[in-house]
Amino acid sequence: MGNNKELRIGLIGCGLMGRIHTNGYKRANDFFPELEYRPVLKAACSRSEEKVRAFAEQWGYESYETDWKVIIARDDINAVDICTPNDMHAEIAIAAAEAGKMILCEKPLARTLPEAQQMVEAIEKAGVANTVWYNYRRVPAVTLAKQIIDSGKLGRIFHYRANFLQDWTINADVPQGGTATWRLDAAAAGSGVTGDLLAHCIDTAMWLNGGIKDVSALTETFIKERVHQETGKVQKVGIDDACIFHCHFDNGALGLFEATRYARGHKALYTFEINGEHASIRWDLHDMNRLEYFDHADDSIVRGWRSIHVSDSDQPYMDRWWIPGTSIGYEHTFLHHVADFLKSLETGEPCSPNFREALETQKVCQAVLDSAADRSWKNTDVEWNKKQKAGQEPVLGEA
Amino acid sequence: MGNNKELRIGLIGCGLMGRIHTNGYKRANDFFPELEYRPVLKAACSRSEEKVRAFAEQWGYESYETDWKVIIARDDINAVDICTPNDMHAEIAIAAAEAGKMILCEKPLARTLPEAQQMVEAIEKAGVANTVWYNYRRVPAVTLAKQIIDSGKLGRIFHYRANFLQDWTINADVPQGGTATWRLDAAAAGSGVTGDLLAHCIDTAMWLNGGIKDVSALTETFIKERVHQETGKVQKVGIDDACIFHCHFDNGALGLFEATRYARGHKALYTFEINGEHASIRWDLHDMNRLEYFDHADDSIVRGWRSIHVSDSDQPYMDRWWIPGTSIGYEHTFLHHVADFLKSLETGEPCSPNFREALETQKVCQAVLDSAADRSWKNTDVEWNKKQKAGQEPVLGEA
Amino acid sequence: MGNNKELRIGLIGCGLMGRIHTNGYKRANDFFPELEYRPVLKAACSRSEEKVRAFAEQWGYESYETDWKVIIARDDINAVDICTPNDMHAEIAIAAAEAGKMILCEKPLARTLPEAQQMVEAIEKAGVANTVWYNYRRVPAVTLAKQIIDSGKLGRIFHYRANFLQDWTINADVPQGGTATWRLDAAAAGSGVTGDLLAHCIDTAMWLNGGIKDVSALTETFIKERVHQETGKVQKVGIDDACIFHCHFDNGALGLFEATRYARGHKALYTFEINGEHASIRWDLHDMNRLEYFDHADDSIVRGWRSIHVSDSDQPYMDRWWIPGTSIGYEHTFLHHVADFLKSLETGEPCSPNFREALETQKVCQAVLDSAADRSWKNTDVEWNKKQKAGQEPVLGEA
Amino acid sequence: MGNNKELRIGLIGCGLMGRIHTNGYKRANDFFPELEYRPVLKAACSRSEEKVRAFAEQWGYESYETDWKVIIARDDINAVDICTPNDMHAEIAIAAAEAGKMILCEKPLARTLPEAQQMVEAIEKAGVANTVWYNYRRVPAVTLAKQIIDSGKLGRIFHYRANFLQDWTINADVPQGGTATWRLDAAAAGSGVTGDLLAHCIDTAMWLNGGIKDVSALTETFIKERVHQETGKVQKVGIDDACIFHCHFDNGALGLFEATRYARGHKALYTFEINGEHASIRWDLHDMNRLEYFDHADDSIVRGWRSIHVSDSDQPYMDRWWIPGTSIGYEHTFLHHVADFLKSLETGEPCSPNFREALETQKVCQAVLDSAADRSWKNTDVEWNKKQKAGQEPVLGEA
Repeated sequence: MGNNKELRIGLIGCGLMGRIHTNGYKRANDFFPELEYRPVLKAACSRSEEKVRAFAEQWGYESYETDWKVIIARDDINAVDICTPNDMHAEIAIAAAEAGKMILCEKPLARTLPEAQQMVEAIEKAGVANTVWYNYRRVPAVTLAKQIIDSGKLGRIFHYRANFLQDWTINADVPQGGTATWRLDAAAAGSGVTGDLLAHCIDTAMWLNGGIKDVSALTETFIKERVHQETGKVQKVGIDDACIFHCHFDNGALGLFEATRYARGHKALYTFEINGEHASIRWDLHDMNRLEYFDHADDSIVRGWRSIHVSDSDQPYMDRWWIPGTSIGYEHTFLHHVADFLKSLETGEPCSPNFREALETQKVCQAVLDSAADRSWKNTDVEWNKKQKAGQEPVLGEA
Repeated sequence: MGNNKELRIGLIGCGLMGRIHTNGYKRANDFFPELEYRPVLKAACSRSEEKVRAFAEQWGYESYETDWKVIIARDDINAVDICTPNDMHAEIAIAAAEAGKMILCEKPLARTLPEAQQMVEAIEKAGVANTVWYNYRRVPAVTLAKQIIDSGKLGRIFHYRANFLQDWTINADVPQGGTATWRLDAAAAGSGVTGDLLAHCIDTAMWLNGGIKDVSALTETFIKERVHQETGKVQKVGIDDACIFHCHFDNGALGLFEATRYARGHKALYTFEINGEHASIRWDLHDMNRLEYFDHADDSIVRGWRSIHVSDSDQPYMDRWWIPGTSIGYEHTFLHHVADFLKSLETGEPCSPNFREALETQKVCQAVLDSAADRSWKNTDVEWNKKQKAGQEPVLGEA
Repeated sequence: MGNNKELRIGLIGCGLMGRIHTNGYKRANDFFPELEYRPVLKAACSRSEEKVRAFAEQWGYESYETDWKVIIARDDINAVDICTPNDMHAEIAIAAAEAGKMILCEKPLARTLPEAQQMVEAIEKAGVANTVWYNYRRVPAVTLAKQIIDSGKLGRIFHYRANFLQDWTINADVPQGGTATWRLDAAAAGSGVTGDLLAHCIDTAMWLNGGIKDVSALTETFIKERVHQETGKVQKVGIDDACIFHCHFDNGALGLFEATRYARGHKALYTFEINGEHASIRWDLHDMNRLEYFDHADDSIVRGWRSIHVSDSDQPYMDRWWIPGTSIGYEHTFLHHVADFLKSLETGEPCSPNFREALETQKVCQAVLDSAADRSWKNTDVEWNKKQKAGQEPVLGEA
Repeated sequence: MGNNKELRIGLIGCGLMGRIHTNGYKRANDFFPELEYRPVLKAACSRSEEKVRAFAEQWGYESYETDWKVIIARDDINAVDICTPNDMHAEIAIAAAEAGKMILCEKPLARTLPEAQQMVEAIEKAGVANTVWYNYRRVPAVTLAKQIIDSGKLGRIFHYRANFLQDWTINADVPQGGTATWRLDAAAAGSGVTGDLLAHCIDTAMWLNGGIKDVSALTETFIKERVHQETGKVQKVGIDDACIFHCHFDNGALGLFEATRYARGHKALYTFEINGEHASIRWDLHDMNRLEYFDHADDSIVRGWRSIHVSDSDQPYMDRWWIPGTSIGYEHTFLHHVADFLKSLETGEPCSPNFREALETQKVCQAVLDSAADRSWKNTDVEWNKKQKAGQEPVLGEA
């Protein structure tokens, strides 16, 4: 059954996120050998036995289950990783918390704010270690942005803008519901781009720039009806295909956010830019190893945006990888998250973002959807403070 | 006194715009030799005699005046070019119209919607030729964007986003009021970035994508007080330092606009992007000779954003310039505007944008400011139609 | 001892390449589950017991050795991976071939052409499976370039240019010799940037564009003396710090190559561009997930270089990875190489580049160094033909 | 006849260069009003009366001629601008010098080194003011590069590389000879890309980095026969379609140069990069308002290539133009050259590059062609020294 330094994982959901988390579990100790804890792949779980058997075999899980409740009931499992569609997050997380399991939950935390609040209540009552997979914080270039901002180099912040642009649902033949396209089904997903894409943008934004105070939003559903995978019938589409909002941050900065799945030419263009009094930063996911940085303190005749290839060993996490000038990829953000979670078990510090922080992101998502629904400004009631920020620092791999 | 094919110009205001318009007048016939009309620099006008004398001498004006009313009264002048701060536009334009002069007016048309409406009324009553200097339509890359869109290549439009980012007022020591900084003085400018920068974005947007129906906006004044150049006293700043709005277009597309003078690192970054069902386009002023274009019809394995260096003779206006691969600059947009205006005098077609179209842009600006003021959505009452669009085509220099 | 579908690896050399190959061995079957063969980490080997013990423990090798001859003597090992400095390649490879082991050898094949010829002779006599780790062929964007070229889209080829620019040896305090800096020691490395960097460029170039016929080269050693790690004394530097050559390809194209470790600002900027009659391609390692492509067949007014983000499942190898728009990294090229090698064991086809092909690259390197030495053109005697090209195709993960 | 501060121009040759020089003459005083000298367009000259009449009318020349000897004989002309094909440069320049005219000659100075030497001899004997239109030195970004280099920021220089890539002659139907395509006719042009394109690269390179000592070159003529415009017959092509060379600079740097008209996708991509011990610079003509700069002295975690938009008033020449963030174009380089030439008449300093400096560029071109012809290294015998460099500084418009 292993020693008490094992993270004995029961993985629920074997899709893309199931694969990429598993990859992180298998590789983290290779690259962070100083970690005391080691993940052990105890069981994978999916409703389809055929699928989960193949998955478990491919990835080396010791066993598989088709009922997530069995995962929670098993004594040899001490951590549950929730990779299901959003509609299962709350039920599984609450049950896992009550069973005393550690919980690693895919984002967004829940479909709605009330669901999320129940989850936080349960998990805090249980006192179990927990984290939510907002993975983009652990792109080295993004972590570097955090370091630069925290160093004070930007000065007073005036603007934060972010967008997350995709184009994969433009075709009206893309169905809703089912395994591959549940993100278009409001019942399964809760919302469309707001929970799927903007939640990422909001998490990063508050991590970098503090709380979002109020929002004014606009949503649109461009294609009103789609075939539902499960019923086979054409049904009304309930999700937001696109969402735009502007906002105030607690620090007085203006925020501007947009997400869509109808931006032809963009596969997954998550970008953000932050403009401060003295310096500015921007980043985009398509060229994730680069950070753009402008420093007004440079000599005026040679002042310009710097394109930083974040691949030197004095840059966040990069002491673990290869050689300057070479790239890492999307999967590494999850591996870093695994490593930071394992480290948090040693130190007893929370692994940011935990459920409590993810709840704040959920508040903003809720306010955004509410604002769009009745065309008015909404307060978010976000509570974001220095203490939380302190708890959010990645704990490994930094200079 | 010249023949009746002369545009005998009285220029009012000798700042940056006075210079760049003059440059256009002097050079247009060199590059568009087929034009029947020729500008003649009759008189420049500015309140400072010292300044206007030097200006007239440098640029070759035949005479100068210090009272704009004299310009309008002079029989040897048949066209008035208004390059003053915004607070003089209405009075001069209305007087010039009543005197039967042709009018070329700097943007924005006016400080407020009511002012603009009076101007349009006067000019349409007088029936004089007129245009407003929204110069960015005549960047060859932007005109090419128009051609691509009008060809139908983009299909249904989902998104239009534009921003205009500057950083020149971050320093709190920049004053308001006076010759160089009247743009920070609400009395002179009417508004801040909304009239100065967003007006450009809105003009281009409606030209490319049709009318804007309703808006929800947010403005901010980051630095609340500045010294006023004229009084020497610290006074409240009345303009918007930054403005963000989202909107619906008549065609169902969502719009997203932002302008600021507090985006550290951006000198004059006017960018727009338009996402259609089949293709997308983006452009930015810092690299104005390039147009980015994505065509989903390309073979999937070699599909990507194309960076088009708009410098071939089959691209708009470029048959007038040098050789493929070489650039033209900011001033050329004004020169193209002059040429198109001269051509419009031959054809009798309006030179787009005329006052009537500029009024529609003013309606959006007004709705934006009103929306920001009371935190609610506003209808714009814009009337934009195919007929107007047809009248807006640049008439020269296209393939 | 495992079944006969196991690649039972003895790894000799535990530096950067030892780590990255090992990572490939451990992960290949996770992502290429259809492969019949599976790597097993039997033993790692390094002269330093302390180092090799830690390495074996971190990466999960079953055992370790400090004498490479023991690796070759062990019956439970059927494949030797040579990751030592270049001066050991020939001796180890020849011994391993004689012992009937499969061989995977780091590039360049050898220090000199005669060494390389002896190795090829030995390996072909032994008839063992073999490959050389020219990893850049298996960057998906580079493999896509190969597909585009082989499709005939470029037409007649006029130009091929490549460079590999680094800046890590500018500081005169960087020593030569020893574990980390043997690449500056002529005795260990054979040559400087020619064998280290240009060899990569040449391998890719001949794969994409066929044989190089003759060369004219220039080398330079900017810093003439450096401390030697082993002797502690300042000694003459024997390597080429920089190397430039131009050449003719068999197909009539002109080639231009440059490598240096003195290009301030470039960490590992390997770039190539190929210009054909109808289309052109370029790529660079710093943004390795992108391929630039220009197609003259595009409509003239919208013609431009396309920036292709190579991350869709119909692009080479990318069906194995994540989602469109997300990146993979440097290490994946080695993992692809492992997968292709394992596949080659199933099919019996050579895994390109094998020793025979790497010998052709070595011929070019030798001709380059000889040309620089006596300032004259040199023929390469490269034999590169269609048949070889056919054998070089990556066999997995392509559309 | 005007005062003695008039540059009374006789322009010989009315093609592209004739137009763009004329544009510079007409506009220089508008933007450099402090200049004492003023160009006056006395006469244009071309063999075709129809063509030259139209040209003179369009551009405002006072008169026209069809025999260049008349231009030289006219007393009312004191400056001759040579814009003919290369085969007329020597004869005209020598005659003009003997007649005591100032001379502004298009580049390259001559077809061959002996021709160039005769020209220099004649002009120095006559003691007339002279300059050669190597215009790229006066791109503000390139002049800024010069300032940065001269400030010592780069330290010891290791590498200089430049290329000039075009694609306009790939089509075999492009003829040789005649008005538009004389550049493909060896008799008219002297050489192909070497004199046309590499001459620019060499001029800039020596201005920035000092003399080129020796060269090893390769040329190619891809299309061996083309119709000749004048004879109507298919004739052997005598020019170099492409040329590559590497070299040593006097300061020990390695140089690498390439030019071609067969690089599909590049219209006029003149780029250079210079790598120094402490910093590097690169520039390309397609984005001519930008300069890329890397400074190793930046903090390591935020170090990257800066993209400088050279459009601020403290950057070279830009105090004369518009506002930060806006671009100027190709023609402005000629206008700056005119202004600097006019200024040189006031100061008595030579206007760089003069014939003497252009002769040094011609020496390198000759050595390159000779090297390619017999496949061996050639010394250039270039004499480039500090004194010459001092004389080359643009004298106007700098910070």
